[in-house]
Amino acid sequence: RFGPGRAARALPPRLLLLPLLPLLLGRGLCSAAAASSSGAAAQDSSAMEELATEKEAEESHRQDSVSLLTFILLLTLTILTIWLFKHRRVRFLHETGLAMIYGLIVGVILRYGTPATSGHDKSLSCTQEDRAFSTLLVNVSGKFFEYTLKGEISPGKINSVEQNDMLRKVTFDPEVFFNILLPPIIFHAGYSLKKRHFFRNLGSILAYAFLGTAVSCFIIGNLMYGVVKLMKIVGQLSDKFYYTDCLFFGAIISATDPVTVLAIFNELHADVDLYALLFGESVLNDAVAIVLSSSIVAYQPAGLNTHAFDAAAFFKSVGIFLGIFSGSFTMGAVTGVVTALVTKFTKLHCFPLLETALFFLMSWSTFLLAEACGFTGVVAVLFCGITQAHYTYNNLSVESRSRTKQLFEVLHFLAENFIFSYMGLALFTFQKHVFSPVFIIGAFVAIFLGRAAHIYPLSFFLNLGRRHKIGWNFQHMMMFSGLRGAMAFALAIRDTASYARQMMFTTTLLIVFFTVWIIGGGTTPMLSWLNIRVGVEEPSEEDQNEHRWQYFRVGVDPDQDPPPNNDSFQVLQGDGPDSARGNRTKQESAWLFRLWYSFDHNYLKPILTHSGPPLTTTLPAWCGLLARCLTSPQVYDNQEPLREEDSDFILTEGDLTLTYGDSTVTANGSSGSHTASTSLEGGRRTKSSSEEVLERDLGIGEQKVSSRGTRLVFPLEDNA
Amino acid sequence: RFGPGRAARALPPRLLLLPLLPLLLGRGLCSAAAASSSGAAAQDSSAMEELATEKEAEESHRQDSVSLLTFILLLTLTILTIWLFKHRRVRFLHETGLAMIYGLIVGVILRYGTPATSGHDKSLSCTQEDRAFSTLLVNVSGKFFEYTLKGEISPGKINSVEQNDMLRKVTFDPEVFFNILLPPIIFHAGYSLKKRHFFRNLGSILAYAFLGTAVSCFIIGNLMYGVVKLMKIVGQLSDKFYYTDCLFFGAIISATDPVTVLAIFNELHADVDLYALLFGESVLNDAVAIVLSSSIVAYQPAGLNTHAFDAAAFFKSVGIFLGIFSGSFTMGAVTGVVTALVTKFTKLHCFPLLETALFFLMSWSTFLLAEACGFTGVVAVLFCGITQAHYTYNNLSVESRSRTKQLFEVLHFLAENFIFSYMGLALFTFQKHVFSPVFIIGAFVAIFLGRAAHIYPLSFFLNLGRRHKIGWNFQHMMMFSGLRGAMAFALAIRDTASYARQMMFTTTLLIVFFTVWIIGGGTTPMLSWLNIRVGVEEPSEEDQNEHRWQYFRVGVDPDQDPPPNNDSFQVLQGDGPDSARGNRTKQESAWLFRLWYSFDHNYLKPILTHSGPPLTTTLPAWCGLLARCLTSPQVYDNQEPLREEDSDFILTEGDLTLTYGDSTVTANGSSGSHTASTSLEGGRRTKSSSEEVLERDLGIGEQKVSSRGTRLVFPLEDNA
Repeated sequence: RFGPGRAARALPPRLLLLPLLPLLLGRGLCSAAAASSSGAAAQDSSAMEELATEKEAEESHRQDSVSLLTFILLLTLTILTIWLFKHRRVRFLHETGLAMIYGLIVGVILRYGTPATSGHDKSLSCTQEDRAFSTLLVNVSGKFFEYTLKGEISPGKINSVEQNDMLRKVTFDPEVFFNILLPPIIFHAGYSLKKRHFFRNLGSILAYAFLGTAVSCFIIGNLMYGVVKLMKIVGQLSDKFYYTDCLFFGAIISATDPVTVLAIFNELHADVDLYALLFGESVLNDAVAIVLSSSIVAYQPAGLNTHAFDAAAFFKSVGIFLGIFSGSFTMGAVTGVVTALVTKFTKLHCFPLLETALFFLMSWSTFLLAEACGFTGVVAVLFCGITQAHYTYNNLSVESRSRTKQLFEVLHFLAENFIFSYMGLALFTFQKHVFSPVFIIGAFVAIFLGRAAHIYPLSFFLNLGRRHKIGWNFQHMMMFSGLRGAMAFALAIRDTASYARQMMFTTTLLIVFFTVWIIGGGTTPMLSWLNIRVGVEEPSEEDQNEHRWQYFRVGVDPDQDPPPNNDSFQVLQGDGPDSARGNRTKQESAWLFRLWYSFDHNYLKPILTHSGPPLTTTLPAWCGLLARCLTSPQVYDNQEPLREEDSDFILTEGDLTLTYGDSTVTANGSSGSHTASTSLEGGRRTKSSSEEVLERDLGIGEQKVSSRGTRLVFPLEDNA
Repeated sequence: RFGPGRAARALPPRLLLLPLLPLLLGRGLCSAAAASSSGAAAQDSSAMEELATEKEAEESHRQDSVSLLTFILLLTLTILTIWLFKHRRVRFLHETGLAMIYGLIVGVILRYGTPATSGHDKSLSCTQEDRAFSTLLVNVSGKFFEYTLKGEISPGKINSVEQNDMLRKVTFDPEVFFNILLPPIIFHAGYSLKKRHFFRNLGSILAYAFLGTAVSCFIIGNLMYGVVKLMKIVGQLSDKFYYTDCLFFGAIISATDPVTVLAIFNELHADVDLYALLFGESVLNDAVAIVLSSSIVAYQPAGLNTHAFDAAAFFKSVGIFLGIFSGSFTMGAVTGVVTALVTKFTKLHCFPLLETALFFLMSWSTFLLAEACGFTGVVAVLFCGITQAHYTYNNLSVESRSRTKQLFEVLHFLAENFIFSYMGLALFTFQKHVFSPVFIIGAFVAIFLGRAAHIYPLSFFLNLGRRHKIGWNFQHMMMFSGLRGAMAFALAIRDTASYARQMMFTTTLLIVFFTVWIIGGGTTPMLSWLNIRVGVEEPSEEDQNEHRWQYFRVGVDPDQDPPPNNDSFQVLQGDGPDSARGNRTKQESAWLFRLWYSFDHNYLKPILTHSGPPLTTTLPAWCGLLARCLTSPQVYDNQEPLREEDSDFILTEGDLTLTYGDSTVTANGSSGSHTASTSLEGGRRTKSSSEEVLERDLGIGEQKVSSRGTRLVFPLEDNA
């Protein structure tokens, strides 16, 4: 038997889960339609009843529309204010910070401006002995209705949850963030990682992302465990809080998201290496934090004492971490490679619309494939984005390149600002906040110490191997840029069932607010205080079809077509002892990476794109037929002109400026002829010009050019 | 008490409603997270139980991912095959037809290739006296679970519904089509209506769309009522089928969707007027069909005999039709106008990303606003699209123009092909088909007759008023192009609760299949058989920033900047008696439209865009301040060159070819200077050149040029 009085209650908030699409409208309408039709068909006495249900559903549908409309208007307002800020060159507040402020305001209005409507929530009386099923069939006066499980409600909350209908309406299902909003953000991040400087600093970035996040997670976890112990002694803790919970908090709060800082870097053209380090770290450590947090959740020791240390369970967690991470990585890479192959071997580039649609679908299928196989979709999407940028992008037509970029740029922009405005809203509308000042202060101290403990020691060790040291000012800037953002929020809101998780969620929210506003606002002063060079001319990714000019340092463009040559790794012509030593060190320390790079250059690029040396020259003779099939005809066409022009560069006084004319893109997707430079310097190398990489030893002052020797350098940072 | 054995049952199919976003993944994951957390927190004996729930949810989540993946791979396959077809210039099968075929194949595999899993569906025992509520709270051994209403299940189906889990998985909530898939399709249609020929044929298009759809609806409805009566006599009808049901069927099946024909027209450059007539009719009659069908559903006579004729209820239905239609129209127009104002008075065009995001959000908010106010979102979105194309588009930056076009093009493409592949799938996976051969044959005859009864008589009446008659071959082609597509399907699947509706759904599905395959394939032969000119040089919408050349007839470009002039309607200089008569007829018949056109040109365009005459000249003197505020400074800048060049045109031998250099777009969004023509003819008009419209009386042969008089013509087709 069911208690009466739940009629006025509208659709549950988890239906409101669609930030991008008005799906939620579906349910209301549908029940209305079903009710209306059965009413027309049956004509029985329950027609009035069903009319009431229909009215109710319609009302609920309207409320859903209104609440979604609220978010859209919020975003519109944010966009207009951002424009005003950009127009006036205001830099102290980023769009995400602004979105949060507007969200906060709307949250306050909803919380205190709308009447509480808790009256119509009555008790219930349908009991069940066994367990909860995901679907119920209910017999209502001869008619059968199907109900689906929405979730558990803690008994104490039954009467308080329903405080305010509007508050419920604007509360989204947390999984929306993971399944709808984060994928485009993460994919866009991966897709825009196609920067020379990312690959140049790959070693450091991987170290920061993997080691750094692990270190940060454990340090924060342990510090927070101390705080929790303290709270227990003081008597501020009203429920259980285990060590694994602390570690979980450490994992979710270790996902940095310096979107504010990076936007300012971009605008001010700050140092490109620092940008690459920060951006690369933040992108990859999101992936690490997701997998780390799910491994910690998966830590379930055998026996009754489920929160003691258990070596077997620990290693199982480590195994889960490695398994999920490598699995997701593989999924992402595989779909990226498949897309590259498809775009290479079909002439889809004649139809940009088809090409863009295919690109979108394949990238989305990565997410679903990973989820279907039990891996993490968001992580897979990240690596898919990187693969797509590295291979598929080169096969796309010019129009599709801009289309895909713009499509994901818009999706990313909308999703990101939606999350941040939702964060602002959640501070007031979320119903289960647990504010614990001790925990919050402890968390702020812990994240500060955690970041310090990973940036400074790691930078020290990395500097031992790096030729271009990460200076103190860079380290301080990285330390400073430890903002928390969308990923930490999404991880924290994913599970707010227990007391510990609720406290974590509240704390995470406050940390995000504080870091985005304070650190975001302080970036410009910090940059000048730390003497970090700004105004470096580095064209953005949008100018990729134009020439690239790079000042101060000679970078590596991994996307540029190298001329075909087999003996790519016979590094020659270093006529100074310094460069020779550098080579040796490089060869010793980074053989694994070089192996990969050579493999990528000699086999993967030729197979997956229209660039690179022909496979007929790189593959052994016995697979000549296969090589001929896989090699794109464009490669042969590009062969001659490349060999002649690839070593051109310009030397101007003061700065060493190398012109790498970016590969001009032809309509059939091949990227070939390099643009000529204005002045030639050094000997026109004939044989050892096989790599696209030229690097000058710039000395300490960075302006002193030692132009005697040209050397072959791989996109590595650790050539001491 | 609840019966056992429903554990293995996965998430219900209505969760699977997300074609574009993996929302469905949310629910599975979420329950898993909730279960896992409560398990960690509680540590009670129910931990094992919850682990089972978690496993179940995870399994369901995977199945959801797999089924969505199926659709994505289906679309990918479709894209690749389309490419192959386009590459080989195969025209007999359109991409939508292809998507249906692939959908059919997958449907067959799912239906007959996967094992039926009906074993685990047991009976239920939780009864309720009162009525169905939208939410239930269920007490399971001390824990409370929340359930939401999914819908009613007819008692006979309880044990048969669950035949096959996979079939359930791939069945979407019908409202998905209305709330997610149709809006981008319809918006794109409206947004790409920015064609001269649409406005030129507006009168005819409106007549076909409104009168034609109403005529077609009533004729089909009445014919089908006859068929139903016949079936009752023969004994083939097993359940009720009312007259209103027949009318409803007439409404949903009157929505034409000649996507296949239009694609071929586009490719072959078929006659532009015919294209405009067909496209305009199909776009607008979708809107009419939606509103018409909901008005018929709303027809509820007072008293017990709910299916007899009741004048009050009838007029109420008519009122509802008018109310919903005008309300939705207003919503769409208002948001379009607001967007135009915002883009005009901010300098958002410096930031194309912000501009695009704003455009997207505003267009989406139309849908929500209309739904929130109780109007029809899809209809509102259509008119919003038209308004955006007419006004906002002119204010956007060049980059945003292409961005918005491409964004909605991709969304439209994906949504359309998704619907068609779902249609193919639904033929085999939909569980409630009612195949009735008599009804199906009757429906085919009825739609044929219904289309004939609206095309030929309407064309006859329109030809009385049209100068350029709609020839017999055009009428036959329009008759032939009565394909049914996405809209008819979405309307039919929206409600399949009763027997009559299920029969309608099955019939609609078969009609769509038949028309898309047979008519789509027969378009090219039909064009040549009917002697319809193809290969007419008409640049597509993408070339808008280039010059437009138009042969054979002089069209009207409503988006072109007219020179500022007050006395727009003093039509002068018709020195032949023929043209004078033409003017008089025009002035008599179309005064309403001309009033609107002059209002649009003199007030709306200057207020909403950077084009048109300055408001300071068109508004009365006493609102000079307001006029000065609203007029864009660009208008004054554009004033001089426009006046000089606007009457330039070229006369080549044979054809009359007028060059209207399209407004060249400057970076700040203003569209101004007209390109000069090569040869000038006729007197350079100084005063009466106020309208952008120049039309020559072409006589009967269309090649005989009487170039003595220039006349002012409005974008109307009915100037006899």
